[in-house]
Amino acid sequence: MRPAEHAQLALLLEVSGTPKPGNVDRDRDLPDLRYEQFLAGAVGAGSGLRAAESDSIGIAFERAVEGMAGRHGENTQFGALLLLTPLVRAASEGELTPAGVDRVVRETTVADAAAFYRAFEHCSVFVSDPPAEWDDLDVRRGSAAIPAVEERGLTLHDVMALGEGEDDVAREWTGGFERSFRVADRIEELSGPLSDRAAAAFCEQLAERRDTLVAKKHGTDVAEWARQEIADHLGDVEMLDALATAFVERGVNPGTTADIVAAGLFIALERGVEA
Amino acid sequence: MRPAEHAQLALLLEVSGTPKPGNVDRDRDLPDLRYEQFLAGAVGAGSGLRAAESDSIGIAFERAVEGMAGRHGENTQFGALLLLTPLVRAASEGELTPAGVDRVVRETTVADAAAFYRAFEHCSVFVSDPPAEWDDLDVRRGSAAIPAVEERGLTLHDVMALGEGEDDVAREWTGGFERSFRVADRIEELSGPLSDRAAAAFCEQLAERRDTLVAKKHGTDVAEWARQEIADHLGDVEMLDALATAFVERGVNPGTTADIVAAGLFIALERGVEA
Repeated sequence: MRPAEHAQLALLLEVSGTPKPGNVDRDRDLPDLRYEQFLAGAVGAGSGLRAAESDSIGIAFERAVEGMAGRHGENTQFGALLLLTPLVRAASEGELTPAGVDRVVRETTVADAAAFYRAFEHCSVFVSDPPAEWDDLDVRRGSAAIPAVEERGLTLHDVMALGEGEDDVAREWTGGFERSFRVADRIEELSGPLSDRAAAAFCEQLAERRDTLVAKKHGTDVAEWARQEIADHLGDVEMLDALATAFVERGVNPGTTADIVAAGLFIALERGVEA
Repeated sequence: MRPAEHAQLALLLEVSGTPKPGNVDRDRDLPDLRYEQFLAGAVGAGSGLRAAESDSIGIAFERAVEGMAGRHGENTQFGALLLLTPLVRAASEGELTPAGVDRVVRETTVADAAAFYRAFEHCSVFVSDPPAEWDDLDVRRGSAAIPAVEERGLTLHDVMALGEGEDDVAREWTGGFERSFRVADRIEELSGPLSDRAAAAFCEQLAERRDTLVAKKHGTDVAEWARQEIADHLGDVEMLDALATAFVERGVNPGTTADIVAAGLFIALERGVEA
């Protein structure tokens, strides 16, 4: 399979892993987000992922998000695509290593940043208010923020650096995709169906570090509660199943951790792990 | 979504539907065929399905099968792709009707038939022995049968006509895709998640007509037993779940019925039904 296909398969395997407390999986829909929408999102993202093999990262990402979001603008895999786009490029250049993907993201341009802002117009993405001095760079402005991006000469890598403190997808971009590669190692180590390994890696990652989407939506205390609950019950599938219900009831949806697992699955597939 | 994407999504929704006695679904792997392999098959078939929008039907089908089969030659969706390829073409020509797809299959050539025979070299497909006078056309010969196909001047439509008596995928090809369109109507009528509707349509189809893959593998009596069991318990999800176990124990795998449901899902998606 070419890199874009491995990326598409990574999205499908990620969402199929269960139990993954708080997230959609093959056994659980959320009230506003369903398993089948993730299948459709993975299919729709295909053209953008193929573009990521050779086109501009920003344009490829925007196209992937547009295809994923479909007619109703559901956001199923925005963060995962933001990680997969540069990883697909690094893989198609034969350099799927922390240094290789670091080079890819550092080579992004102001035009890539502009495309990234346009991507927010295709679907609804949960973000916090930016600090006052960056108000003109608020991603929720979409295209309207592009003049400010251009005036400041910000590349997509620069934009990610602004978010690295509060968003772990951005932190991957500025930190050599450290956790993504670690998840890939773990998926290679584990045995069994890949979606089971992905669910296990998800729980381990969540136990290790608070999910930044949960922290943005519900505050650090809730994110820490979720982390601790998972850490206390790691490996206990029955308890994790019960936690899945508790998380959904509280609206706790650790989406960033899932994004990183999708990135790790992609890397593992590129290394030859088989579904 | 473009037709090739709807076809890919149809494959994913079909395999996700449960319970679907005897077949792989999101809750059930078979000993030699797993859910994740179907996800990979749908991803791998993408390039061939895109080719079906404009290239030769035979070449597109061969490419789809090659991509589906991957490194180990698993046969997850051979029959479904044989139905989807001409349906994708009909849709991309704006004529997704029984007459439209009938025209597409009647326009196939000897070169399409040759590509069809080559497709058998990419994966293992269960077929019965042909009548003695067609021995030189046995699909298991793969490319080696192509000279005989060319000598007799058989188009892919002609080859399907040879199989229509014992294979319901071939029967769709020669009968205006009658059941595929009927499944699409039924999926439009039903409500709920599309994969649930697909599973319900699968059971209804199986109750109506013996599965030809089961008949080829185990004989007409076993195919009739399976049909009757499903007919007796239609709509009773608990019993259907129990039958799923019984079917798997007997190696009864109604794959042709699943192929037709995938085709019906594609038509329904093209008509605007949403995942």
